[in-house]
Amino acid sequence: MAKEIKELTPRNENYAQWYNDLVIKADLAENSAVRGCMVIKPYGYAIWEKIQKQLDEMFKETGHVNAYFPLFIPKSFMSKEADHVEGFAKECAVVTHYRLKNDPEGKGVIVDPEAKLEEELIIRPTSETIIWNTYRGWIQSYRDLPILINQWANVVRWEMRTRLFLRTAEFLWQEGHTAHATQEEAVAETMRMLNVYADFAEQYMAIPVIKGIKTPSERFAGALDTYCIEALMQDGKALQAGTSHFLGQNFAKAFDVQYLDKEGKREYVWSTSWGVSTRLMGALIMSHSDDNGLVLPPKLAPYPVVIIPIFKDENGLAAIGEKVEEIAKELKAQGIVFKYDSTDNKKPGWKFAEYELKGVPVRLALGARDLENGTIEVARRDTLAKETVSIENIGVYVKNLLDDIQQNIYRKALEFRTAQTVTADTYDEFKERIEEGGFILAHWDGTPETEALIKDETKATIRCIPLYGEKVAGTDMITGKPSPQRVLFARAY
Amino acid sequence: MAKEIKELTPRNENYAQWYNDLVIKADLAENSAVRGCMVIKPYGYAIWEKIQKQLDEMFKETGHVNAYFPLFIPKSFMSKEADHVEGFAKECAVVTHYRLKNDPEGKGVIVDPEAKLEEELIIRPTSETIIWNTYRGWIQSYRDLPILINQWANVVRWEMRTRLFLRTAEFLWQEGHTAHATQEEAVAETMRMLNVYADFAEQYMAIPVIKGIKTPSERFAGALDTYCIEALMQDGKALQAGTSHFLGQNFAKAFDVQYLDKEGKREYVWSTSWGVSTRLMGALIMSHSDDNGLVLPPKLAPYPVVIIPIFKDENGLAAIGEKVEEIAKELKAQGIVFKYDSTDNKKPGWKFAEYELKGVPVRLALGARDLENGTIEVARRDTLAKETVSIENIGVYVKNLLDDIQQNIYRKALEFRTAQTVTADTYDEFKERIEEGGFILAHWDGTPETEALIKDETKATIRCIPLYGEKVAGTDMITGKPSPQRVLFARAY
Repeated sequence: MAKEIKELTPRNENYAQWYNDLVIKADLAENSAVRGCMVIKPYGYAIWEKIQKQLDEMFKETGHVNAYFPLFIPKSFMSKEADHVEGFAKECAVVTHYRLKNDPEGKGVIVDPEAKLEEELIIRPTSETIIWNTYRGWIQSYRDLPILINQWANVVRWEMRTRLFLRTAEFLWQEGHTAHATQEEAVAETMRMLNVYADFAEQYMAIPVIKGIKTPSERFAGALDTYCIEALMQDGKALQAGTSHFLGQNFAKAFDVQYLDKEGKREYVWSTSWGVSTRLMGALIMSHSDDNGLVLPPKLAPYPVVIIPIFKDENGLAAIGEKVEEIAKELKAQGIVFKYDSTDNKKPGWKFAEYELKGVPVRLALGARDLENGTIEVARRDTLAKETVSIENIGVYVKNLLDDIQQNIYRKALEFRTAQTVTADTYDEFKERIEEGGFILAHWDGTPETEALIKDETKATIRCIPLYGEKVAGTDMITGKPSPQRVLFARAY
Repeated sequence: MAKEIKELTPRNENYAQWYNDLVIKADLAENSAVRGCMVIKPYGYAIWEKIQKQLDEMFKETGHVNAYFPLFIPKSFMSKEADHVEGFAKECAVVTHYRLKNDPEGKGVIVDPEAKLEEELIIRPTSETIIWNTYRGWIQSYRDLPILINQWANVVRWEMRTRLFLRTAEFLWQEGHTAHATQEEAVAETMRMLNVYADFAEQYMAIPVIKGIKTPSERFAGALDTYCIEALMQDGKALQAGTSHFLGQNFAKAFDVQYLDKEGKREYVWSTSWGVSTRLMGALIMSHSDDNGLVLPPKLAPYPVVIIPIFKDENGLAAIGEKVEEIAKELKAQGIVFKYDSTDNKKPGWKFAEYELKGVPVRLALGARDLENGTIEVARRDTLAKETVSIENIGVYVKNLLDDIQQNIYRKALEFRTAQTVTADTYDEFKERIEEGGFILAHWDGTPETEALIKDETKATIRCIPLYGEKVAGTDMITGKPSPQRVLFARAY
């Protein structure tokens, strides 16, 4: 690959192009030969692995276990839950045949018409149907409940317009599917997982989120309630970063899953589902990065520290190498993962730009003069500030710096969101403000008609009805009808 | 679920039925509503997660990184490598459409004939083609090499006769795909990963394996050489537990992947691929288990220790619970994961049988008399031996016991294999011996004709040409032609 310094389109010139440039040039992902499907490159995948590992730990701490269900869903399953089929059956990859054969005309292979499936199979767009069909065999009595299962998997939704990480035909995700004896328990689980997602977003991704409930028109197909966390990107657009659904007894009824309660009465099971996907990568990139490239929170960086030697010749490199071994010991003692880039076919300046592009939180640079002086140059990616410090106790110094960067990135994102969150009391005010981006808190009369009107006219949707924060009643900015609290509007990804 | 003690069909009555009973009753996996696809249940998946975690660590220690490539492969890609298409194109799931619509007759949903793909997509049966098509964009010069990538993924091969874990239409696996500047490097990589697989099988799964090379007729479709590890199951049938392929320049040529070497000359890239799958679960189950259930090596057990209280009433349970807290501390200090089963709706006898069925390596049982005496009952799953020991230093005691069990299980499997490995010098002897199962070392003239004849007449295949062990020349047992060394025959899964 070309080794010149890679430039990004500046954000204020073309934000969408900046995003795409960054994903490609920081080696996160690229488009594949298959329309709408991406290749997640090793550096991007390493970030996803860190996301997975942390979430998986949090799921297990809250009592969940992993399992695996089939990729394929029989077509007939899709129509068993009335709302679900409306939401998902429309953009599915459909398997109709199970064999290829040599083209009799000698041009490669063709689909063997004799190998047609009796019933077509859908590639899972989400797994409620196949999982609830399975749970029927697992649940007889209250003693079999709750079932608290998560699955890490790939899913396919045939999207027409795709963007790397944000919207792809195939994507990776986790989907939790739980079964409970009571409504109360299922609702508590829905909230528990919403909180897990919010904690993860804020503490690991350094992205402040607003917890809320979706309006009926934005609900998951088949849910009674969809809870979500909403984040604000730097271009002022919202991104839904995770959802947790209270499914009531809808899927239990559709797949006839009943249990005998303690009194020996048959009842339908209550359920939830919840998921986050590789879309989180898009949120991570867009929340913190700048015109120089990616900015990663230390907790999710594949290597939070890079060490770059500044040397003239092999002897110089060897001397630095010795010192780096000492530094390495100190970093390891603090549990810090680092990369030492001593390649000699690239200049330090190129390396500086490259690791800035890749969002490595801390860069340590070390030259001959540093060896003499017992110093080292420390640069932080979030502020681009550099300083030369004593090499003594460098492990502890870097550890504290990483903690500070993690907090600073979050604080910066929170300040941005606070500044970009406004209220609007009239529709004119709303229409004016929405052009600038950001979250708008406004009163809504609770009807799908008003919601649809606003969407049509402004492209803004109700991201959620916030669960927390001030709740003051008012009147709908268009119809003047009563509203119990302000809801959160934005244009969204 | 019914809480009676679950009985297995004994192995000597019907081995295949025993295997299926065990997979189902130990809650490892079950058949799904989709033909040939399984559901991996939480307990089975927890074992697979331990396998994944360890292998992933070993891959990373040998310099590999993970990435993710699309589930779909354009049909035309399959025919680019001539041997590959012959081996894989025949039993594939084929996506032909991308949308469903409401049945105009009102019966659920039907495939929308208007949403037909221009080019059909194959669900990956293995990913060489899509990956090498991608590598073309990543490789320009020798500086871009080697590429050492692994992928954890699901794949689909439309098998007609399926068995849980051993042969399923969809299965989970990892596939390594590496690109190298020289043949030498690629061959070294092929061997490196063969050794990783063998080390993993022996040290973690406690399964002794024979490393060897496949005959041309048993090679991976598109490989120049396929190396494998072969294990022997308790019923005397062989199971291929992992393969590592030297692909030469076949895929580089099929997808036109060239690089500029140091002299500025364009060369085709050399490659390898290697994989293990959820089939390993089948090997694990069949290598060690008995008529009472699963026997798990401690290193792969989701919880290597279970603690069962023997109590009459709540006070009794509370007193035991206090002591268990002390034990828990000691176990944790040794890094031992355990489960404390204090449920009161099942008798200790039921629990004993249940955890035996699930293969938990060590069972600790603790009653009122033990509290008085400062003792605890320790039972090991591999030998079913029980003893009552002092509770003092129980953590260290259990740690040593787990190490001993890990070694003992391996030793037992090795002794079995040694006893079941014989030589045959005449075809009559061979035909007689093959009926008893086991590995047969015999001379072979190196021709596919003799190999096919033996397979037709005895159902035995050449599992591999062993890489190690005594290599003495001889003559083919059928044709009398010269043979450089004995090769390994068996009937196989």
